Amino acid sequence: MNKEYILVTGAAGFIGSAVANKLIDLGKSVITIDNLSTGDKSNLNKELVFFEGDVFDTNILDQVFKYNIKAILHIAGQSSGEISYDNPIYDLRSNTESTLLLLKYAKNSNCKKFIFASTMSVYGEQETEIVDEKSIPNPISFYSVGKLASESYMKVYSKLGIDCIALRLFNVYGPGQNLKNLRQGMVSIFLAQAFQNSSILIKGSRDRFRDMIYIDDVVEAFIKSIKANVDFRIYNVSTGTKTTVGDVINSINAMFNDNLKIRYEGETPGDIFGIYGDNNLIKSDLVWSPKINFKDGLSNMYNWIIDNKIYDL
Amino acid sequence: MNKEYILVTGAAGFIGSAVANKLIDLGKSVITIDNLSTGDKSNLNKELVFFEGDVFDTNILDQVFKYNIKAILHIAGQSSGEISYDNPIYDLRSNTESTLLLLKYAKNSNCKKFIFASTMSVYGEQETEIVDEKSIPNPISFYSVGKLASESYMKVYSKLGIDCIALRLFNVYGPGQNLKNLRQGMVSIFLAQAFQNSSILIKGSRDRFRDMIYIDDVVEAFIKSIKANVDFRIYNVSTGTKTTVGDVINSINAMFNDNLKIRYEGETPGDIFGIYGDNNLIKSDLVWSPKINFKDGLSNMYNWIIDNKIYDL
Repeated sequence: MNKEYILVTGAAGFIGSAVANKLIDLGKSVITIDNLSTGDKSNLNKELVFFEGDVFDTNILDQVFKYNIKAILHIAGQSSGEISYDNPIYDLRSNTESTLLLLKYAKNSNCKKFIFASTMSVYGEQETEIVDEKSIPNPISFYSVGKLASESYMKVYSKLGIDCIALRLFNVYGPGQNLKNLRQGMVSIFLAQAFQNSSILIKGSRDRFRDMIYIDDVVEAFIKSIKANVDFRIYNVSTGTKTTVGDVINSINAMFNDNLKIRYEGETPGDIFGIYGDNNLIKSDLVWSPKINFKDGLSNMYNWIIDNKIYDL
Repeated sequence: MNKEYILVTGAAGFIGSAVANKLIDLGKSVITIDNLSTGDKSNLNKELVFFEGDVFDTNILDQVFKYNIKAILHIAGQSSGEISYDNPIYDLRSNTESTLLLLKYAKNSNCKKFIFASTMSVYGEQETEIVDEKSIPNPISFYSVGKLASESYMKVYSKLGIDCIALRLFNVYGPGQNLKNLRQGMVSIFLAQAFQNSSILIKGSRDRFRDMIYIDDVVEAFIKSIKANVDFRIYNVSTGTKTTVGDVINSINAMFNDNLKIRYEGETPGDIFGIYGDNNLIKSDLVWSPKINFKDGLSNMYNWIIDNKIYDL
C-alpha cells in the first residue's frame, strides 16, 4: 500500500540509467522523470515507473510525489559546460530550478534524503592541480554556476531537515556513454572518432589532464550516499590520479593496434588545462574507493561498443 | 531618433526610485520595469518610461529592448532573506533568472554595461567581523544564494563583452524606505514602531551590529558605476563602520526625547550577529566615499517622515 520508492531523475541518461539499474538489481522500487532530450528511451529499465517531461515541470512533480518517495537522486539536467552557452536559461531551469523544486517537494512530502549529481567544474580555474572539497569554487561557465547554486540551496534545505549530499563527479566514462553526442565526454568523443574514421583529432594540448572515473565507481558513490548519515556533505567522486590527454590517446590507439591517425590542432574555448580530485573525504565517510583503473575501464568500454554493435571494426 | 536610455529595474521601490530620480535629474532618459509587488506606483517618476510586470517576463523584455538601452541597473527583485523562505522559486526567478535574462538581452542588443544590486548577505556566516571582496562568500538563505549566483553569471557575461559591476549593498536606510513593511529594514521597522506605539520591541541582542549606509550614498555608487571602466568588479557599498542595535535604538529614542519604551525579547531566526564592510576597493576604483553619517541620515529620515505625514507625533 504505502510502498517506498526512490526517485532517480534522468534514468534515460548515461549515469541515471546505470544508477537506476543498480537500485533495481538491489530490489528497490524506482521512479524516474526524464525528458528524453539527451537520454534514450532504450536506456529505461522496464521496472521503472517512468514520467516523461522536465523535472522543473510542477505538473509532473505533483504526479510523482503521489508516490511515497524516501530518497531523491537528482541526476537529470543539462550536463555540458560548452552547451550551457547555447541556452543559459534552460541550463538554469534544468539544473538549478529543478533542484530547488525537488527540495521543496521533498520537504512537503517528508522525504529526508537528497543526493545530487554535481560536477568538478564548480572548481573552475584553480591555482593548484589537485582540489579538495575545501578548495574555493570558481565556476567559469553557466553550467558550473548553476550546479554550484544548487549545492548552496541544498545547504539551506539541510538546515530545514533534509539530509543532502552533493557528489562532485569528475570525468565519468564507461559503457553506456552516448557515442553519438560529439560535444561532451572526452573518452566517448575520441572513441567515436576512432571507430568511425580510424583517426582522432584533438583540440588542444596532449599534456592537458583529467581525473577519469569509471561509471560503476560513480554508481557505487550514489548507492553509498543513500545510506550515509550526514546532514550536508560535498564529496569529490574521483580517482585522485591524473590521466593526460596523451595517455587517453595512447591507450585508445593501443586497442586499435596503433593504427589510428592522430592529429593535434587548435583548442576548445573555455577548456581547462586540468585538475584532479582529492577523494579522501568520501573514502573515509562512505568507505568508498574507486575500483576500476583507466586501462581496464577503457577496455570494458571498448568491448561494450563491439558487443552491442554500436560501431564495428 | 536613436535616443539612448538607461534601464533601471524596480524604480517603484526604495533604492530603484532614488536611482531613477537622480538619473532623471542628471538629464538622462530612463526606462523601468516594476511589478509593483513591494514598490509603490507613487514612487514612479513621471518622466519614466514604465513597463508594469516581472523582469523575468520575456514578453516585457521584448518590448523594453526595442528602446536603445545603453546601460542596465538591475535593482528590482525580492529583497529579503527572511521572505525568500516563503517562496524560494519566486526568489530564484526574481533575483537570478531575471539577471540572466537581462544579460542575454544586453548581449543581443549591444548594451555593454550592467550594474547589479547585490547584497552583503552573500557573505553569510564569516569568521571575521569585517569583510572585503576577497572574503569567501558563505550564503545561508535562498535570497543570498540567488544573489551570489547572479554575480557569477555576470562574471561569465563579462567575458562575453559586457562590463559588469555587482554592488554588495550593506544595510541601506533613509528617506523613501517603506515604513509599512515590517519584515525588512532595521531602521524602518524601529522607526515605524516608535511613531505608531511610542515603543520598540527588539528581537535579539542590543550588541548585534550592522553597517548602515545612507540611500544617497548608495545612489552615488550606482551613478559612478555607470562610468567605471572595468570588465568585472564586485564592490562593497558600506561605511566601514559598525553601528550596534543599541546605537540605533539610542539615536531613535533621543529623537523622541527618550520617551520610548524599549524592550528586548527573543531573536529573529537566521539573523547574523554582525559584519561590516571594508570599502577601500570602491573608494579607490570609483572615487566614491560615504558622505552621510548615521546620526545625520537618521535625522533626515525622521524629518522626511514628518514632512510627508507618513506618521505624526
